[in-house]
Amino acid sequence: MAIWSTSANDEGFNSRLHEICFKTNLDYDNKLLPWDIIALISHGRMLAKCELISASDAELIETHLQEMKQEALDGTLKMLPEIEDCHSLIEDELIKRAGDAGKQLYMARSRNDQVVSATRLFGKDKLIKIKHTLKSFIEELLNLASKYETTPMPGYTHTQRAMPSSIGLWASSFAEILINQKETIDAAISLNDVNVLGSAAGYGTDFPIDREFVTKDLGLARTQVNSLSCQLSRGQVECQTLQSLWGTMFVINRLANDMVWMTSAEFDFLDVGKSCTTGSSIMPNKKNLDPCEIIRSRYHLFTGQISQAQGVISNLFSGYNSDYQETKGVFMEGLTLVEESLEAMGIVISNTDIKEERLLSFFSKDIYATDLVNRQVIEGKTFRDAYIEVKKSLDTVELEDPYENVKRKTHLGAPGNPGVDILKERLNNFI
Amino acid sequence: MAIWSTSANDEGFNSRLHEICFKTNLDYDNKLLPWDIIALISHGRMLAKCELISASDAELIETHLQEMKQEALDGTLKMLPEIEDCHSLIEDELIKRAGDAGKQLYMARSRNDQVVSATRLFGKDKLIKIKHTLKSFIEELLNLASKYETTPMPGYTHTQRAMPSSIGLWASSFAEILINQKETIDAAISLNDVNVLGSAAGYGTDFPIDREFVTKDLGLARTQVNSLSCQLSRGQVECQTLQSLWGTMFVINRLANDMVWMTSAEFDFLDVGKSCTTGSSIMPNKKNLDPCEIIRSRYHLFTGQISQAQGVISNLFSGYNSDYQETKGVFMEGLTLVEESLEAMGIVISNTDIKEERLLSFFSKDIYATDLVNRQVIEGKTFRDAYIEVKKSLDTVELEDPYENVKRKTHLGAPGNPGVDILKERLNNFI
Amino acid sequence: MAIWSTSANDEGFNSRLHEICFKTNLDYDNKLLPWDIIALISHGRMLAKCELISASDAELIETHLQEMKQEALDGTLKMLPEIEDCHSLIEDELIKRAGDAGKQLYMARSRNDQVVSATRLFGKDKLIKIKHTLKSFIEELLNLASKYETTPMPGYTHTQRAMPSSIGLWASSFAEILINQKETIDAAISLNDVNVLGSAAGYGTDFPIDREFVTKDLGLARTQVNSLSCQLSRGQVECQTLQSLWGTMFVINRLANDMVWMTSAEFDFLDVGKSCTTGSSIMPNKKNLDPCEIIRSRYHLFTGQISQAQGVISNLFSGYNSDYQETKGVFMEGLTLVEESLEAMGIVISNTDIKEERLLSFFSKDIYATDLVNRQVIEGKTFRDAYIEVKKSLDTVELEDPYENVKRKTHLGAPGNPGVDILKERLNNFI
Amino acid sequence: MAIWSTSANDEGFNSRLHEICFKTNLDYDNKLLPWDIIALISHGRMLAKCELISASDAELIETHLQEMKQEALDGTLKMLPEIEDCHSLIEDELIKRAGDAGKQLYMARSRNDQVVSATRLFGKDKLIKIKHTLKSFIEELLNLASKYETTPMPGYTHTQRAMPSSIGLWASSFAEILINQKETIDAAISLNDVNVLGSAAGYGTDFPIDREFVTKDLGLARTQVNSLSCQLSRGQVECQTLQSLWGTMFVINRLANDMVWMTSAEFDFLDVGKSCTTGSSIMPNKKNLDPCEIIRSRYHLFTGQISQAQGVISNLFSGYNSDYQETKGVFMEGLTLVEESLEAMGIVISNTDIKEERLLSFFSKDIYATDLVNRQVIEGKTFRDAYIEVKKSLDTVELEDPYENVKRKTHLGAPGNPGVDILKERLNNFI
Repeated sequence: MAIWSTSANDEGFNSRLHEICFKTNLDYDNKLLPWDIIALISHGRMLAKCELISASDAELIETHLQEMKQEALDGTLKMLPEIEDCHSLIEDELIKRAGDAGKQLYMARSRNDQVVSATRLFGKDKLIKIKHTLKSFIEELLNLASKYETTPMPGYTHTQRAMPSSIGLWASSFAEILINQKETIDAAISLNDVNVLGSAAGYGTDFPIDREFVTKDLGLARTQVNSLSCQLSRGQVECQTLQSLWGTMFVINRLANDMVWMTSAEFDFLDVGKSCTTGSSIMPNKKNLDPCEIIRSRYHLFTGQISQAQGVISNLFSGYNSDYQETKGVFMEGLTLVEESLEAMGIVISNTDIKEERLLSFFSKDIYATDLVNRQVIEGKTFRDAYIEVKKSLDTVELEDPYENVKRKTHLGAPGNPGVDILKERLNNFI
Repeated sequence: MAIWSTSANDEGFNSRLHEICFKTNLDYDNKLLPWDIIALISHGRMLAKCELISASDAELIETHLQEMKQEALDGTLKMLPEIEDCHSLIEDELIKRAGDAGKQLYMARSRNDQVVSATRLFGKDKLIKIKHTLKSFIEELLNLASKYETTPMPGYTHTQRAMPSSIGLWASSFAEILINQKETIDAAISLNDVNVLGSAAGYGTDFPIDREFVTKDLGLARTQVNSLSCQLSRGQVECQTLQSLWGTMFVINRLANDMVWMTSAEFDFLDVGKSCTTGSSIMPNKKNLDPCEIIRSRYHLFTGQISQAQGVISNLFSGYNSDYQETKGVFMEGLTLVEESLEAMGIVISNTDIKEERLLSFFSKDIYATDLVNRQVIEGKTFRDAYIEVKKSLDTVELEDPYENVKRKTHLGAPGNPGVDILKERLNNFI
Repeated sequence: MAIWSTSANDEGFNSRLHEICFKTNLDYDNKLLPWDIIALISHGRMLAKCELISASDAELIETHLQEMKQEALDGTLKMLPEIEDCHSLIEDELIKRAGDAGKQLYMARSRNDQVVSATRLFGKDKLIKIKHTLKSFIEELLNLASKYETTPMPGYTHTQRAMPSSIGLWASSFAEILINQKETIDAAISLNDVNVLGSAAGYGTDFPIDREFVTKDLGLARTQVNSLSCQLSRGQVECQTLQSLWGTMFVINRLANDMVWMTSAEFDFLDVGKSCTTGSSIMPNKKNLDPCEIIRSRYHLFTGQISQAQGVISNLFSGYNSDYQETKGVFMEGLTLVEESLEAMGIVISNTDIKEERLLSFFSKDIYATDLVNRQVIEGKTFRDAYIEVKKSLDTVELEDPYENVKRKTHLGAPGNPGVDILKERLNNFI
Repeated sequence: MAIWSTSANDEGFNSRLHEICFKTNLDYDNKLLPWDIIALISHGRMLAKCELISASDAELIETHLQEMKQEALDGTLKMLPEIEDCHSLIEDELIKRAGDAGKQLYMARSRNDQVVSATRLFGKDKLIKIKHTLKSFIEELLNLASKYETTPMPGYTHTQRAMPSSIGLWASSFAEILINQKETIDAAISLNDVNVLGSAAGYGTDFPIDREFVTKDLGLARTQVNSLSCQLSRGQVECQTLQSLWGTMFVINRLANDMVWMTSAEFDFLDVGKSCTTGSSIMPNKKNLDPCEIIRSRYHLFTGQISQAQGVISNLFSGYNSDYQETKGVFMEGLTLVEESLEAMGIVISNTDIKEERLLSFFSKDIYATDLVNRQVIEGKTFRDAYIEVKKSLDTVELEDPYENVKRKTHLGAPGNPGVDILKERLNNFI
């Protein structure tokens, strides 16, 4: 029986209904567990500081919570199927270890602000970790770009060969968009970098607590002032945290898709190691880039997760609603998906090399037509006149040396000058 | 090592990449397992019939597969973490049990058509089961509607009290929309009621097989003729199967939301048993209808799942793509979600009664205004003239007896004649 | 000023708020206009039959409505910016033409059941038209499939060349999935084939009306019995109508994507006429298949529209809510999008031919590996043994004649027997 | 005929296909028109600076462009149905006005970088404007919160009356979440604050242009370096711009929903002026808060628009694809939707007052139960013990003075101290 009787754990509550509605994914609560304890440690210190509990009780509580935190990090303290959630686990365990002093901790808070606290601390930590993973991934891309900075490759528009490009331009195009995600991810970190403790169930408490103390003790950027706003933010910050990673997932989706095509027999531009390709159970001749197909598809799982959270929290009345609980899984799964996709794509890129001969073989006459127009313009024709003329006599376009062609394009961001150094410099300020 | 070397299970394949890309949810494969075996039994019979394997080998294979099927249903044959998928499990197990004869079964098919076969058989079976659960749920609603067929309740528009209504009208409004789902669900059953075996990896085989034999042997409605279309249908039929249940989830979302509000202190129309309500860890006074909040939110998880599947299979090239594998979890989770939501909502409805006195207390004068206009029309005024007049002197509207008012409205579908009997009759043809 | 004062058209209502909230897309109301009138004609007949209005008034009303219907179809009666909606237009116009008799028509209904009626009649009509367009499109695909039934083309899995296929198999794979949409679309037609008139604002009326008469007079399959369910169905039937066309849009998305790639220089399998390709403002050498790119993208606009409608109508309270009005545009735009996409794709397909020589040039040795395994199996090896052996010595695979290879695969649905005739037969029962 | 022949405007292009695929919404291009001209002015200056055109030509070009810009802002220069897009309009018009000098401008750019330039400049400007509108809206909310800072209102959880709250807490809860949107919106501004000119069709040009000059001349924060990344950003920045406004739309959705319920007869907490409510065509007694219902629903249209853009640009190959064009409407419509929703909600809030007597009447005994528990804790009991005791004897809870109760809760963010001043201070740094 739960400590608060007539709750869902009551003997009176329909057991099948309980199973359907409150089935816990232990893994989610295990992830929140250390963060929940960290928040409670600060809460306990504040209660003592405000003289709501005695200094000795506070000490006892903190000693046990510090122990429990370490055990949670080590994985020795973890969820049990019969426990309702990580908050109950901690409460049970603390009272078991610290006795009545443990009970003292449970004033001036509620499970409502506890779960939001743990989620925000977890979210902030995860975003920072993802930023580091992302930075490494961008470095990987820029290394590839540096190595083949002006190596010619055909450039496409409408999936049709269009103009000369370079491997450097291709690889660093993904890197630049990823670097541009910095501010968006930082904004999401800032949304998570807040203290909600003391907001209780959304309406505060009678206790003369000091919320700013907790904010400082947890090293957070600011107090989420309004108690009710802490509840309004449930799901909202989770959503915005996931949205802040959308740009990253998008770039990965497009890179993965490019690589699937560029390793097909028709393109065959890239050489991806055997460690990243699979065979077929029926066709002995196949060598497939499954990982990129799967990463590509995960983008769609991710956007669906964002939609789920966006839907769950809409059209609801002020204050806590149980609907919010359903955003927990979406949030946890979404963050894992991003982390893993980045990691997987990093493995693939670090096993990727290019096929220079093959790339050169794609430089047919057509691809130089636009450049011919441009040269005629430089020599004095207007663009439109030159365009119409070249179009009329496409067969007069002559083959060029692809290396020469690419190197001639030297303005910033052109195939002969993709600006990899500038991007590397920007990346230095990424974190 | 997998039987097909250089596949993802190769020693050469990056183990972290494998983990991220091919982590199996054993539960999904366990659900497909019996259906996979059932399809293989028919495949074996066909091979014998076409003299591609000997009658004695066929017998040996079938004997073992029948045994394995029973064990799969009993739960004694089940997935192991080290096995790639249910197809591999069956293949390994069959060869272990039947020796070389077992190997004979693996001609003229591929894992590609095997997984689609198992998925279709599973999908058809699940939809039929859901239809039965849905029928019981509708009966529950109609029972409530019958019991209080003309019991007055206020009717709302714009969340504002508008006109007299009845419990019968309210409860059976959900029932009618659910009954109307029959054709949509049947259409989805028909999409699953097909045989894809023999389509192999989408390009058929050299073997002179008899696909129509398998179709009949499995008792399916038709052969999915075109081998490549069997691959094009991956994810598509899964999507349409989930879409066919959208209407059901929508009705449950709206019913659950109505009940959350109608059990609030402000409305207090319904009496839901303690077996379906929960308390609060901080507020001893609370009695919350959590199950309905959670069911309400699951609608949004469900629409997100449909979005995921719709996204994953878009913009892809003909033939199998690994992206398809990601629709398996979405499909399985989506079907479970619908089943459980129906079950949970059924438990709630069967524990729901009404508060008649409370309902009557909501019949203030305003609610009769429209009826007054209508009566003046019957007595000879035009509607617009009567409307304008009543609006001008709303205070002259008189209180009526709610029972009399409701009973006076006798046309089909009015609060005094919600047509519950007609709906019960329609429900008879539901399955 | 609106005929019902204190409505949104009141002088008192904030004009900017009115503009933002009730801006009408005249085009939507123009489309509903004839259907609204058709429903009112039956409503008038019923009122006379029930002796709620006189026979002579009824005659006068019908005469004018018939005239107005014709004018609406001709486009001479149409929405004006200052009119609130098509219902108001008809009411104003009818009273102008028929005088006080016109006012008589406005009893026992509301704008609520009027708009649902018009929408259902419109929806049913549109779905039937789309089914015809779809049938023509499938015929176009099957014609292409017939013409090149066993013409060899490479078959792909994982976007990698895998096994021999045929143009017939490729083209008819799309056709079969489209034919399979019949039941789903029919189910949606059935959802629209209902009479909601008389349900008024969701709570019926005092008037002794005969709803079944209207159902028969409109030639509809059944009465939507429960008045409140008519409101619950707002948005729901619109959603399910769009969902029923999802399978169609999906197939078009995939076909369009295939064609974009198959017309690239790398594949170059297809010859699409100049009437369907575009140039570039900067590259004189380009010939792009824009229409297929745009059709491909419209799939995503379409799934987004479904999401919009699914979201708008969720988590709402029983009875009419103004939120419903926002599903009108989504519904109208969605149906137009499907119609136009089908039409556009039909134009492209009818301008598409194949490049046989080019297709043949793609038959390298690799593509025959699986067939070699299969032949060894037919000659007595087990599949797994043959597979492993061929894999070990892929260079021993010999080139075959693609035509011979394809024609040898004769089981139903194989590249040599795509079953186009069976599909044509099924198509006969499509409507 | 378009200036670049064999384009979609060719006589050869199928006219119906053209209509379906390239139908222009003139309104979208009119909005981009001034921004397109502004970008071209800087482009012209740069060409002169790089000596690619003569100083006199440059002057002539700029004179005419400045004129055209003014006309575009005044609305006298605007799109015509027969013109392909705003880029063509400007080119035609400039050549008409400036003769051959005008043609000179069309070097070293493409319609591809032109449309991205105009879109980014437009997006940046729009976001800044929306931030100002948002700030005003937050001020409106904070004014309401200040006015009734500690006026008691019931606080809800699970849509059930839970604990005492205050109007100040309620109104400012929305404000705080909105203030927290600052960083997210700023990050989106930064994504738009870039120069893409010179990237041409994604592969740069032969011309020795100076892209950094243009960046400075346009007053932009940075150059989007990589030419190909400018194309990869099409749709991506548009998506992230819309996503950055999701939090705002979410808050409005929830506020609108609260207000719909709080103006119902059952709650009746708020008094919204007649200028924001509507009547019914059938029920003379109704006074509906339509604007809030419609604003509530627009949230779902908005999330659907984001889904559309997220889908359109997925799974595509590097370089420009025509699919991108379909994000233009989504982007434009989405931004308008946010602007209008904010404006509408602002009008409603400025017409809203509270019903103090009514609010007080909701303070039944139950609502004080948690406070009683807390007071017993302050007096020495542990929370759990006090909780269980109060729960056992809920009838002993005594009525309190709501004003006293609220004022007693003085910690930061409690109903008696919602922290409106802190929020006002934070708002000062909003822009």
